[in-house]
Amino acid sequence: MIDQLLDKIEEMQNPTVVGLDPTYQMIPSFLRMQMLDVYGKTPRAVAEMFIHFNKEIIDHVYDLVPAVKPQIAMYEQYGLAGIGAYLETIDYAKKKGLLVIGDIKRGDISSTAAAYASHIGGTEIEGEYFDLWQEDAVTVNPYLGFDGIEPFVDICNEKNKAIFVLVKTSNLSSGELQDLHAGEKMVYERVAMLVRGWGEEAMGTKGYSKVGAVIGATYPEQGAKLRLLMPRTFFLVPGYGAQGGTGADLKGFFDATGRGCIINSSRGITEAYKKSDKYNEQDFGAAARDAVLAMKADLRF
Amino acid sequence: MIDQLLDKIEEMQNPTVVGLDPTYQMIPSFLRMQMLDVYGKTPRAVAEMFIHFNKEIIDHVYDLVPAVKPQIAMYEQYGLAGIGAYLETIDYAKKKGLLVIGDIKRGDISSTAAAYASHIGGTEIEGEYFDLWQEDAVTVNPYLGFDGIEPFVDICNEKNKAIFVLVKTSNLSSGELQDLHAGEKMVYERVAMLVRGWGEEAMGTKGYSKVGAVIGATYPEQGAKLRLLMPRTFFLVPGYGAQGGTGADLKGFFDATGRGCIINSSRGITEAYKKSDKYNEQDFGAAARDAVLAMKADLRF
Repeated sequence: MIDQLLDKIEEMQNPTVVGLDPTYQMIPSFLRMQMLDVYGKTPRAVAEMFIHFNKEIIDHVYDLVPAVKPQIAMYEQYGLAGIGAYLETIDYAKKKGLLVIGDIKRGDISSTAAAYASHIGGTEIEGEYFDLWQEDAVTVNPYLGFDGIEPFVDICNEKNKAIFVLVKTSNLSSGELQDLHAGEKMVYERVAMLVRGWGEEAMGTKGYSKVGAVIGATYPEQGAKLRLLMPRTFFLVPGYGAQGGTGADLKGFFDATGRGCIINSSRGITEAYKKSDKYNEQDFGAAARDAVLAMKADLRF
Repeated sequence: MIDQLLDKIEEMQNPTVVGLDPTYQMIPSFLRMQMLDVYGKTPRAVAEMFIHFNKEIIDHVYDLVPAVKPQIAMYEQYGLAGIGAYLETIDYAKKKGLLVIGDIKRGDISSTAAAYASHIGGTEIEGEYFDLWQEDAVTVNPYLGFDGIEPFVDICNEKNKAIFVLVKTSNLSSGELQDLHAGEKMVYERVAMLVRGWGEEAMGTKGYSKVGAVIGATYPEQGAKLRLLMPRTFFLVPGYGAQGGTGADLKGFFDATGRGCIINSSRGITEAYKKSDKYNEQDFGAAARDAVLAMKADLRF
């Protein structure tokens, strides 16, 4: 999957991943009304809003970006119907040729991590194989150490998938734990060194490992240091746009040849229709496309 | 919820929580056959196995224990049907009067954490309220710092719920990150101090906070140290039984009055029918009941 991702970024000349993190407030009112009319004030109605919204966004961006990243929490909030919308979104994105990074941030002890790894590994029932989640990659949490990561790494190798391990997250209070000094290094640097080591077990063929890292765009200095510390680790970078990161901040996240990184934007793209009088709310797909093109230009430095 | 939990432990004289972490291998073959016959080799068949299995276990233990703890990963592995089984298990447990701790170990940045917090806080759609997940408490991951925890803490206060934050987990490699030396203390002790501080914002009325901690039974020395470091933090303790912890190991996890702790056992209870010739597989419920009684006796020290 990391090889494919590198190829698609090259082909599209665009290291952007579109975050599909819908909220009720993000949905244009015409679409809300439509679904409330059909399904009432129910989780099903919101799930249908999310599906329609995401499909329209995907239709407008699938030829410009290599991947999408749905955030499962936004769907989980609406229970079973919401998770159904998550699955339908992934299915649609894959049919459009997009790679899908499931932003699930799971992490647990080994036997439990093996169950979570079904997100990328599928499930077997009496010899029948089911790929129920269909993600090409997922995000995972390192707090439990390697035995919580290993089942995912095994599947990365078996099925050519990828994971992105949280190293330095984009949020304001990420430092409370991640920036503790642990000897000469900070905790996130120690985690980076662990992730680099885990990644050696799962190298792709184009210089990058199938075990990647999540590094927030909001911490450009740390990102550049981490690039040096983990030269063969692919970075998934959230926090661009709505959270404050800009293209110029990100130069150090890339390697010398401009590879090794994919930058996520969610609200900056999916809510672009709200940011300018140019669009009315029916144009949310076109607005998203314009935002992707602007981001592509910004990332060219 | 923490006040209720303290009361129920007192009333039942039993600080045991039954982990409902079903696997395909755990299901007695007669029940497997039955569901495969009706539903074929499908995720739905496994979901139905889990529902029947869990209900039988619950029927045999609900009068002996204060709470159950379903591990969502085991259900997530079977996709939408699996998550349906998770929800039905919770619904059934609550109707039997049990408290439910959802072992979900979620953790993300603030806006996303707010969506995950719907597990305990429910969801509003145009003024209608839906409690889609029904958990009384959930487990959460501290790696992102307070802004990923705060939305949960707010709901603990608003809706009298609880969370258990991972501090020192029961698995072998938990030390890779958690035992790094950060100044005078180790990382898990620094996390413990953060959790203690977060917990001050959400005190219950019986001396314990609604912000609890997960401390593995497999680290008895650390558990005893953490009891002193976090005197008002309720501990959820996994790793008893199948993972190697025993009752005698756990004395230091409790406070001087024998309160402040709930001990989880999963396979030790739900798979008890496999451990003795006394039972045939139809008796898995009765075997679970015997295992709970044995555990209750063991925990009396």
